[in-house]
Amino acid sequence: MKWPSHGANPHFLYEAMNLPVPKEKLDFSANINPLGPPPVLKENWGKLLEAVTEYPDPHGTILKRKIAEREGLQESNVLLGNGAAEVISLIGRMLAGNQAVIVQPAFSEYEEACRVSGCQVQYHQIPDTWAWMDDDLDAKLKKADALFLCNPSNPTGAYYSKSIILHLLEKCRSQQCLLIVDEAFYDFLADYESISQCINEYPNLLIIRSMTKMFAIPGLRLGYLLADPAVIRKIAAFQPHWSTNGIALKAGELCLESESYIKETITLIEQERQRLFLFYQSREMLVSPSRINFYLLKDPTLSNQYSFLQYLLNRGIIARHTVNFPGLEGEWLRFAIKGPGDNDKLMEAVDGWLDSRL
Amino acid sequence: MKWPSHGANPHFLYEAMNLPVPKEKLDFSANINPLGPPPVLKENWGKLLEAVTEYPDPHGTILKRKIAEREGLQESNVLLGNGAAEVISLIGRMLAGNQAVIVQPAFSEYEEACRVSGCQVQYHQIPDTWAWMDDDLDAKLKKADALFLCNPSNPTGAYYSKSIILHLLEKCRSQQCLLIVDEAFYDFLADYESISQCINEYPNLLIIRSMTKMFAIPGLRLGYLLADPAVIRKIAAFQPHWSTNGIALKAGELCLESESYIKETITLIEQERQRLFLFYQSREMLVSPSRINFYLLKDPTLSNQYSFLQYLLNRGIIARHTVNFPGLEGEWLRFAIKGPGDNDKLMEAVDGWLDSRL
Repeated sequence: MKWPSHGANPHFLYEAMNLPVPKEKLDFSANINPLGPPPVLKENWGKLLEAVTEYPDPHGTILKRKIAEREGLQESNVLLGNGAAEVISLIGRMLAGNQAVIVQPAFSEYEEACRVSGCQVQYHQIPDTWAWMDDDLDAKLKKADALFLCNPSNPTGAYYSKSIILHLLEKCRSQQCLLIVDEAFYDFLADYESISQCINEYPNLLIIRSMTKMFAIPGLRLGYLLADPAVIRKIAAFQPHWSTNGIALKAGELCLESESYIKETITLIEQERQRLFLFYQSREMLVSPSRINFYLLKDPTLSNQYSFLQYLLNRGIIARHTVNFPGLEGEWLRFAIKGPGDNDKLMEAVDGWLDSRL
Repeated sequence: MKWPSHGANPHFLYEAMNLPVPKEKLDFSANINPLGPPPVLKENWGKLLEAVTEYPDPHGTILKRKIAEREGLQESNVLLGNGAAEVISLIGRMLAGNQAVIVQPAFSEYEEACRVSGCQVQYHQIPDTWAWMDDDLDAKLKKADALFLCNPSNPTGAYYSKSIILHLLEKCRSQQCLLIVDEAFYDFLADYESISQCINEYPNLLIIRSMTKMFAIPGLRLGYLLADPAVIRKIAAFQPHWSTNGIALKAGELCLESESYIKETITLIEQERQRLFLFYQSREMLVSPSRINFYLLKDPTLSNQYSFLQYLLNRGIIARHTVNFPGLEGEWLRFAIKGPGDNDKLMEAVDGWLDSRL
């Protein structure tokens, strides 16, 4: 069986598992803000039609300036991309012929981007308590040119504090190694400590950001890279002209004005995560120590969660399989945190599963 | 002085030439359908908001199928891209370490994409009658892995017939060389002869298409590649996930239903081109033998057209400089064909220029 490599687009999962697609579906496999796009985007959608007929600003100057101001950095520290996926792909291209270490389990695109560029990959495996462990990292970094870390982690939702990042930055600097931190979900953290300023001191730090998760605009594709200007220039040389489309540029400008919407989202997600985790605890189901808008879930009576996944899919509840996450290998399922009504339906379905097991 | 590398985004040109930007501007530097996007896109714009919140189909299956059907090819012959610019960039990556010949003058992205991948570039220069000339092409192809041809040509608008393409396909096949034909403007030709079917016989043929010119959607970014399935697979491996955004996919599906709009556009462009060319002829200005929606223009009393360009810019009329087109080197200006009113204003401004010269 060929498992789809990503969440979202759930029809691929039904196809792969040879299951009929139910009429009503709830997709917990894509980690998108359950509130949908910020109201300002809906209100201005009509006007965005104008951006269709013009070539996008190839430098995305206005959006870049807004991002730089938010982070206390210069425009020369920012590269906009056609989704974080493009940024990762461009980094992979920069690493052609090099060696990289990936902290696992992690988003699969780092490895893809490295391998297609002939960059060799090693894993630094975090055991399933998901607390940081140096272990034999030093030995691996000796031969490495880059270390990839997803923080907060996709798929676990665990967050490694700024002190751990600083510890890794020192380690990487002493080995002349880049530290590439993917912060695609940083804005869901209630107590996020920014590391953007570290770029001034550590030119080996690259920070990948996505705007599609918090602002629920994955269809538009919008991400960016924060890094030293020399790194930005190197990577920008590989980027196709007009890579970030004009609607994404305008939408990005609007979204960055939505501070109250971000706060509202964080509050909602925290409440729902607490409610869900209490429920799972009471049912003796295991969860990862997530601090953000998704988590891993495991029925501890099963090793492989295939039958649980199938039970849910048949009821239109779509989880993310973890077969292609090294260290998880299908022994967990990943769920996005959605709105209260949808989470209720998920909990009902989990209870149904537990009853069916008896 | 650093000339902007492309048309569109005219503020770059004003900046480079250190000129104030007039309040009223007419941009002839971007070769976009003057009718704007097809009505069906405007009518459905509200609905497209839904595509914002969903991840795009990473394979763009529906649009790919529609394109394949139109061309009498299989879905496996089609790769969608984030604009033709991404397709060109991916081809460049496939050619890493190889050698390419570019028929010049041509769109500058072929050379950019080759050079950034370490693919060496030679030119096959077409003299400024712009009729096809084999010249020493055979010798160049002996060492080459790919031949790039823009047809109809950007920047001249000249069209090389199917018999010339077949002649080049034979030549390239015998030298185990790819023929990469960029047909970004094919749909503006009244008498275009499709070469798509040749892919079945010549697996060395790659056809690049853009949907942003005819359908006036450059802000959305949408292009595609037609090629042998083995080539498509090779190139797709380099492409970031979800590279073609969800709005572009849906808009592309809608645009392909607009056959009558394409016909209307071709008729308008032909009428306006005739009108413009008669005007230029009567003023003893030189034009390229364009068959499509843009042309080169030269005041034969000047070699470098800088003063003419500057005169027009000061009046808000924006032409495309040709400084970075090998073989043109600023000795021509390129103009898009716009609607009758805008073309009238251009002709008035040209008359103004001619009077000012006296």
